[in-house]
Amino acid sequence: MKIDLDRLMGERNLDAILVTGPAQHNPSMYYMTGGGHLTNAELIKVRGAKPILYYSSMERDEAASTGLSTINLDTHNLTALLKETDGDQVQARAKRYQLMLNEQGITSGRMALYGKVEAGASYAVFLALQNLMPDLELIGEVSDSLLLEAMATKDEAEIEHIRAMGKITTTVVGNVANYLTSHNAKDGRLVKADGQPLTIGEIKRLINLWLAEEGAENPESTIFAIGGDAGVPHSTGNPNDYLELGKTIIFDIFPCQAGSGYFYDFTRTWCLGYAPDAEQALYDDVHSVYQTIMSELKINAPCEPLQDRTCELFQAQGHATIKENPHTQDGYVHSLGHGLGLNVHERPWFSHAAGGENFLIPGVVVTIEPGLYYPKRGMGCRLEDTVLARPDGQFEIMAEYPYDLILPIQEN
Amino acid sequence: MKIDLDRLMGERNLDAILVTGPAQHNPSMYYMTGGGHLTNAELIKVRGAKPILYYSSMERDEAASTGLSTINLDTHNLTALLKETDGDQVQARAKRYQLMLNEQGITSGRMALYGKVEAGASYAVFLALQNLMPDLELIGEVSDSLLLEAMATKDEAEIEHIRAMGKITTTVVGNVANYLTSHNAKDGRLVKADGQPLTIGEIKRLINLWLAEEGAENPESTIFAIGGDAGVPHSTGNPNDYLELGKTIIFDIFPCQAGSGYFYDFTRTWCLGYAPDAEQALYDDVHSVYQTIMSELKINAPCEPLQDRTCELFQAQGHATIKENPHTQDGYVHSLGHGLGLNVHERPWFSHAAGGENFLIPGVVVTIEPGLYYPKRGMGCRLEDTVLARPDGQFEIMAEYPYDLILPIQEN
Repeated sequence: MKIDLDRLMGERNLDAILVTGPAQHNPSMYYMTGGGHLTNAELIKVRGAKPILYYSSMERDEAASTGLSTINLDTHNLTALLKETDGDQVQARAKRYQLMLNEQGITSGRMALYGKVEAGASYAVFLALQNLMPDLELIGEVSDSLLLEAMATKDEAEIEHIRAMGKITTTVVGNVANYLTSHNAKDGRLVKADGQPLTIGEIKRLINLWLAEEGAENPESTIFAIGGDAGVPHSTGNPNDYLELGKTIIFDIFPCQAGSGYFYDFTRTWCLGYAPDAEQALYDDVHSVYQTIMSELKINAPCEPLQDRTCELFQAQGHATIKENPHTQDGYVHSLGHGLGLNVHERPWFSHAAGGENFLIPGVVVTIEPGLYYPKRGMGCRLEDTVLARPDGQFEIMAEYPYDLILPIQEN
Repeated sequence: MKIDLDRLMGERNLDAILVTGPAQHNPSMYYMTGGGHLTNAELIKVRGAKPILYYSSMERDEAASTGLSTINLDTHNLTALLKETDGDQVQARAKRYQLMLNEQGITSGRMALYGKVEAGASYAVFLALQNLMPDLELIGEVSDSLLLEAMATKDEAEIEHIRAMGKITTTVVGNVANYLTSHNAKDGRLVKADGQPLTIGEIKRLINLWLAEEGAENPESTIFAIGGDAGVPHSTGNPNDYLELGKTIIFDIFPCQAGSGYFYDFTRTWCLGYAPDAEQALYDDVHSVYQTIMSELKINAPCEPLQDRTCELFQAQGHATIKENPHTQDGYVHSLGHGLGLNVHERPWFSHAAGGENFLIPGVVVTIEPGLYYPKRGMGCRLEDTVLARPDGQFEIMAEYPYDLILPIQEN
């Protein structure tokens, strides 16, 4: 949680953190500022002190509404610095950072860097800053960053944001289910009143519309993939595909609050009308593993063994897994889940490759999403809920929704 | 344009470019791949060769649908590399880049870096890569990057994308105008059928809904700011504010194609019901400067003198400008416009501080958006269109819309 920042900075021996970039689509800056229309901002937090937000003059009201202490970026005017550096953009920006850091009392020690910005530009500027300030060590953390560690446990307000997004998400999923079942089938596919077949593109458009009606955003799109496409975990589905009966549809939806706020992440697998034996068996295997894993979640337990356990369960059912064969594209091919918050994927991680220490401590919000994939057999199945590890040791599904595989359809 | 990449790489003495990150909300990767659900990708383009897309196994179909040559990232398995590096995430990732680059024949020379990703993580990994490959110079460009230079001129397909977004944008602006004028006023503000005052929050929600209906996304939100808020260029407007008559409303809307594609950018200033003399005079000044600048646009002309010219025109009207006083918050306080494409702000720049060479060459798409701001007097005005510099030397407004200040309102 944000209140842990000073402690975590102490544990990591960090004297300061620097967050750069806009406040939207940039989880680190959103986390520190609460979002808003800040397109060009810098934030410095010295250990033990409150964060200072440097804002662009045009955005002074947006900056003020964050409630943070603020300083106009123009205090260290870039045009003047460009004159000093003979127009060298990299040096002028590095120099500006140096002036801001000195102003905050930072001349040496260790400072970590955050913010989703252009990799090349920030590489050049931070390298120049490192050269300007040799006594200050610039730290870049991969996957086990301090901010991701703080963000991994949610406070009450954050939990309410995610819960609200869960409600919106399951409402929209319900709308989609109702919309699909309100159609008749003809020649094995859903058709509209005019007899024309319904397409996945039309469904996705409605999903975006219903999300907007609920005040949500869908920045990462939706996975709505049928048949062979459902057999590939991140295939988003072909907009021109028809809604065929008896094929698995993976519907994975992960919208966020408008203004790039908190996410929710949710998946169901549906068969329209009926499920052939193979599809039903696939679903039964995934559902059974889902239930076993959910029943075995333990507060404070490490995450990675749950990935091993999931592999073990799928192997016992006769499926290939990435534990036995890291290159398999059949069977269980991804990780069990991931943390979720301002990032759709964040700590804790379940994957062995991700790094950092990952535990189901109270306050973490994770997805649990076992799945099985058989692209050549034209099917895939995944079930996913977003789950809160509560202080009382219980794991709470943050938005309940039925798990049914079959959506009943009237055949014409 | 993308076909200029090899030439531009030659001019900048670059042997390769590396683009990292997802294909959504990451203009560099979107540009090279055409977008899609690639959450974890790397792209290497060697000068004179076609780009190679490294994709995550789960996203192989999305990768294939880009039409690029592709290689599975798993070819250089991260888990195996982590074993080699004793679990060091930075070293393992740097080593993976080295293997990928070697595979593409790059062991020395100069390579530029692109992609919107976490600044700290990429700083650490690229610094480690630089140490692993001392003969390859890693280049980070600020604001005048090769990709931004290529992206500044649009090809036919890109122009059609922006035109389509212009049509959607002006349709939604028309919806908003119709919605506002369909309301009556009471006590100087718009009221709904139930007599309750309409709020800016309700208008913004409808804007998102109408954009979704048109298949667009609104990742950067909308500026809909009234009165004193209109006096601050990037104030987005208070959702609880009422729609008061006789106050300037700045409505600046900049949506993009779903899946974080091409943007449009558009502003009108409205007064509901009537315009007091001061507001009318403010508008007349901005409108006159807008018309003068539009009439003076010349193909192949440099952009920065147009900013000076705009300041000159506003000064002649008696307004303060940032040319005379860089710190002014009254009068004309920003730059005349900016390029627009996959970034809502990109090259060419009109500001002296931005760097790079900026010309109105055929194929560039820029916004022209003069404005005046008087926050203490409770008013602001901006007019903005997105304009294409055509090969025939003409400047074309990509979506026409009336400039009227006053929206007529029935008083109850």
